Amino acid sequence: MTQPPISRFPVPSIESLPSDIKERILAVQEKSGFVPNVFLALAYRPDEFRAFFAYNDAVMEKDSGLSKTEREMIVVATSATNQCHYCVISHGAVLRIRAKNPLIADQIANNYRKADIGPRQRAMLDFAIKVCLNAQATSTQDFETLRSHGFSDDDIWDIAAIAGFFALSNRMASVAEIRPNDEFYMMGRMPKS
Amino acid sequence: MTQPPISRFPVPSIESLPSDIKERILAVQEKSGFVPNVFLALAYRPDEFRAFFAYNDAVMEKDSGLSKTEREMIVVATSATNQCHYCVISHGAVLRIRAKNPLIADQIANNYRKADIGPRQRAMLDFAIKVCLNAQATSTQDFETLRSHGFSDDDIWDIAAIAGFFALSNRMASVAEIRPNDEFYMMGRMPKS
Amino acid sequence: MTQPPISRFPVPSIESLPSDIKERILAVQEKSGFVPNVFLALAYRPDEFRAFFAYNDAVMEKDSGLSKTEREMIVVATSATNQCHYCVISHGAVLRIRAKNPLIADQIANNYRKADIGPRQRAMLDFAIKVCLNAQATSTQDFETLRSHGFSDDDIWDIAAIAGFFALSNRMASVAEIRPNDEFYMMGRMPKS
Amino acid sequence: MTQPPISRFPVPSIESLPSDIKERILAVQEKSGFVPNVFLALAYRPDEFRAFFAYNDAVMEKDSGLSKTEREMIVVATSATNQCHYCVISHGAVLRIRAKNPLIADQIANNYRKADIGPRQRAMLDFAIKVCLNAQATSTQDFETLRSHGFSDDDIWDIAAIAGFFALSNRMASVAEIRPNDEFYMMGRMPKS
Amino acid sequence: MTQPPISRFPVPSIESLPSDIKERILAVQEKSGFVPNVFLALAYRPDEFRAFFAYNDAVMEKDSGLSKTEREMIVVATSATNQCHYCVISHGAVLRIRAKNPLIADQIANNYRKADIGPRQRAMLDFAIKVCLNAQATSTQDFETLRSHGFSDDDIWDIAAIAGFFALSNRMASVAEIRPNDEFYMMGRMPKS
Amino acid sequence: MTQPPISRFPVPSIESLPSDIKERILAVQEKSGFVPNVFLALAYRPDEFRAFFAYNDAVMEKDSGLSKTEREMIVVATSATNQCHYCVISHGAVLRIRAKNPLIADQIANNYRKADIGPRQRAMLDFAIKVCLNAQATSTQDFETLRSHGFSDDDIWDIAAIAGFFALSNRMASVAEIRPNDEFYMMGRMPKS
Repeated sequence: MTQPPISRFPVPSIESLPSDIKERILAVQEKSGFVPNVFLALAYRPDEFRAFFAYNDAVMEKDSGLSKTEREMIVVATSATNQCHYCVISHGAVLRIRAKNPLIADQIANNYRKADIGPRQRAMLDFAIKVCLNAQATSTQDFETLRSHGFSDDDIWDIAAIAGFFALSNRMASVAEIRPNDEFYMMGRMPKS
Repeated sequence: MTQPPISRFPVPSIESLPSDIKERILAVQEKSGFVPNVFLALAYRPDEFRAFFAYNDAVMEKDSGLSKTEREMIVVATSATNQCHYCVISHGAVLRIRAKNPLIADQIANNYRKADIGPRQRAMLDFAIKVCLNAQATSTQDFETLRSHGFSDDDIWDIAAIAGFFALSNRMASVAEIRPNDEFYMMGRMPKS
Repeated sequence: MTQPPISRFPVPSIESLPSDIKERILAVQEKSGFVPNVFLALAYRPDEFRAFFAYNDAVMEKDSGLSKTEREMIVVATSATNQCHYCVISHGAVLRIRAKNPLIADQIANNYRKADIGPRQRAMLDFAIKVCLNAQATSTQDFETLRSHGFSDDDIWDIAAIAGFFALSNRMASVAEIRPNDEFYMMGRMPKS
Repeated sequence: MTQPPISRFPVPSIESLPSDIKERILAVQEKSGFVPNVFLALAYRPDEFRAFFAYNDAVMEKDSGLSKTEREMIVVATSATNQCHYCVISHGAVLRIRAKNPLIADQIANNYRKADIGPRQRAMLDFAIKVCLNAQATSTQDFETLRSHGFSDDDIWDIAAIAGFFALSNRMASVAEIRPNDEFYMMGRMPKS
Repeated sequence: MTQPPISRFPVPSIESLPSDIKERILAVQEKSGFVPNVFLALAYRPDEFRAFFAYNDAVMEKDSGLSKTEREMIVVATSATNQCHYCVISHGAVLRIRAKNPLIADQIANNYRKADIGPRQRAMLDFAIKVCLNAQATSTQDFETLRSHGFSDDDIWDIAAIAGFFALSNRMASVAEIRPNDEFYMMGRMPKS
Repeated sequence: MTQPPISRFPVPSIESLPSDIKERILAVQEKSGFVPNVFLALAYRPDEFRAFFAYNDAVMEKDSGLSKTEREMIVVATSATNQCHYCVISHGAVLRIRAKNPLIADQIANNYRKADIGPRQRAMLDFAIKVCLNAQATSTQDFETLRSHGFSDDDIWDIAAIAGFFALSNRMASVAEIRPNDEFYMMGRMPKS
């Protein structure tokens, strides 16, 4: 059977890409063992690719008051709300690995209100979903609720920035129908021996 | 009367900023006669600032099958749907100037379906609003409708990328309550003599 | 370029109208310097015209616990929610003039939650929007909230009556596609010298 | 048991009312055998009362391309969508009488799509509900659909005007919690002998 | 005039049915004086018929902390929310009879928030509607609110089970367009002499 | 670490159950290697348990024009729309096994419009989601669309019955917070060797 396309738009060959983009893709391949399709699909537009991953690194990779697990929870919860195949499947895998928990990603993708999380993470995701669906109604009251759970204003910026960045990411992935690599579905589901 | 704050978060002084960001802001000030508040508010996070404006330049400033007026129409229509003060007021000003039309921004912000636009721009905005509100339901049928109005697949990517980028931008501006500069309200409303 | 039509329906000439309607229109023209299009568009149905403006006068012009500025705020906020071109553009102009504030109408039209208003006016608009969108869920609790901001029961009736009357007005203007006069866009934006 | 109040607001005695309003109410009482509560509740504001019933008469009582039964169908369908007790119960009674059909009002109040009506009335109610819920999206296409069912543009104005007037009426009745008279519940349910 | 069909699907004759189903239907006919159409329409699928009425009996007929009137209120409120002709008309009749109140069914079908019910029943219906529309958001807070009105956890299960069972029932009746018998419309409206 | 509870309500011990229910549960345990929690949670109410599983067997287990894979697709798509943890996780496992496809359940749970399914299954799920969310608007047009994809009227009943039954099932599982067994998450993800 032929493999379905990974994007509605043309997908460049790795060799044809500008060297900085090629290097980033090869580094990811080295680390993961495969090239996540979002890299190939977005490389169709090199300038957007560079800005996209620079934003991603700024909100997902730096040190922050949010743990890496919490950041992935925000990605999975908001991307599920936006019904984004690529982001839920791929970041679901990352969340399972970060959290060392094979159940948490499916729980959050389905209904974070019933997931195995505590009140701090519940408040974090309530706010992330408000940013996802109704940012225009955010208010001082939301900030106060988050502060009462120990979040600083910098943490609140981070929650909003992650939910905001995936508002962009989900829309591009849904319109382009970027296909999650098959590898993601199983990642993080088995205990490492 | 004291001026209301321009952001919920700390706003750095221009002098304190990294030199590349300072230069960008001074160049905008030179051109516009004032510093749009979004530059100051986002400069609180230099790495996000750089990625944000790199994305903006990639989707708003390059040559494209969409005219600059059309791109501003997409910004105003989707930002109004998201009820984003900063983006509607500031890009409304840019749209009036680009279109040399003092009415079009208020029309599109209120209800693009009743605005003075033709069928091509109506189809463009219908799709932009779908990306804004329901990207998960975009389909081949949408691509065919847009192609029937003369849009190429590259144009469709551009529409989605602009709607997607302002999905991010609107959310950050709403959560941070970035205040549009007073100057924007009047820009482009009077014929140049 | 030909002027777009001001209504989907036939527009009577002023001369052809019954004398009471003609007089009202000429009085408005005398005061404003132009005839607002809603007068011409609705004059197609004289009996409805008379009832419409009698209602308008009863809820917008009489002495009341709500200031004239506050009444215009309700019109702009609810008409923006209903995406009514005519009412937002024309009453936006009136609001700027009444409030002597060139920014307030665009702020309220876009997102009253982030506008430069105090808690009393915020509570007033929260209730007006509830009447606009979900009057069936209004309750004693809403009355108590409004009373705690100093509104009397008569004031609450007024808020509901204005939101209700523009529920009618917005629907007629949207279906008939009544076009706001170009004059409205600039009114109240410049300080009087 | 004490009778529940008929309005959240003060209800004037008939004797205390201006003579034109008193006469109208007594005429209704003469004809119906009781005073419908909406007359008493709205008489609290005589000027609004006069405008309200003038509008009502203009859209509900005059000769028109819509039959009186069809006009009541529009009232019941839109008032049910707005969950308005007073209007659904009272105009449901009128609809049963006008249509000489004891079933039609409950059918339309519940779900007009499954009611015993033909394609013309279905198209009429589809448009009325669009005016009720989403007038800002009405378009030339809606006019064409209605014309294909034999409606003139004057008929389309009438449908919109009735849906618009009850948008106002429903909101006032819901906020004031105007109580339908017990008499309405049984009216028109039994064949006249 | 020919009678409209009672279902979109084939309707078996009573004689052709398995004996247990035939007996149940004849018993209902004996008691009510007519065969409610839902029995004939669902008998098209005997196994589903048996499970459906077994479920119905389990949640509607057994002894419980909810009175039979309260259970019918839940049916009418949730079925009206789902705009189900058959269930609102038929259970509206049952509710009038159980409550010995000719007004209550129409009130609850239209807008239970404005019906003649007390705070306990209001809390019960608020929860039933949440189960109807948004069960995924139910939480410990809902349980606490219900307990504060005197409902046991078993009562809460019952409310959810009735709202859940009619979520099924309403969907089958709407898709099959099961027609309520004409007899239901008048039942319980007249005082028994 | 203690295991979280499997239901908000009391969970009976298998030994304490009526013999028919005990037998059914032991048979499932024999076949699956564990007792799915829904059996224990619902056994709290034996009569409802019996009716629930009789309904389940009638719509999910009998021969039908829908394949068993297709029936599980309907369950997963509608249960995901209702954000039901138990049903999506458990029936996702069954769907993977029935379809011998480790990807399909996560795809359909996230966004069936972008899943690896053909036009027949797409039409089937479009209708199932309409029954799930808006059954009151189903119409002859839906039947015609389904027939054009080869579905018989009996198949349409089956789609509606499955979507309807899980409308019930999802609501009970969400209110009771029935916890999916950990075993389900991995089932069907690995090729059988």
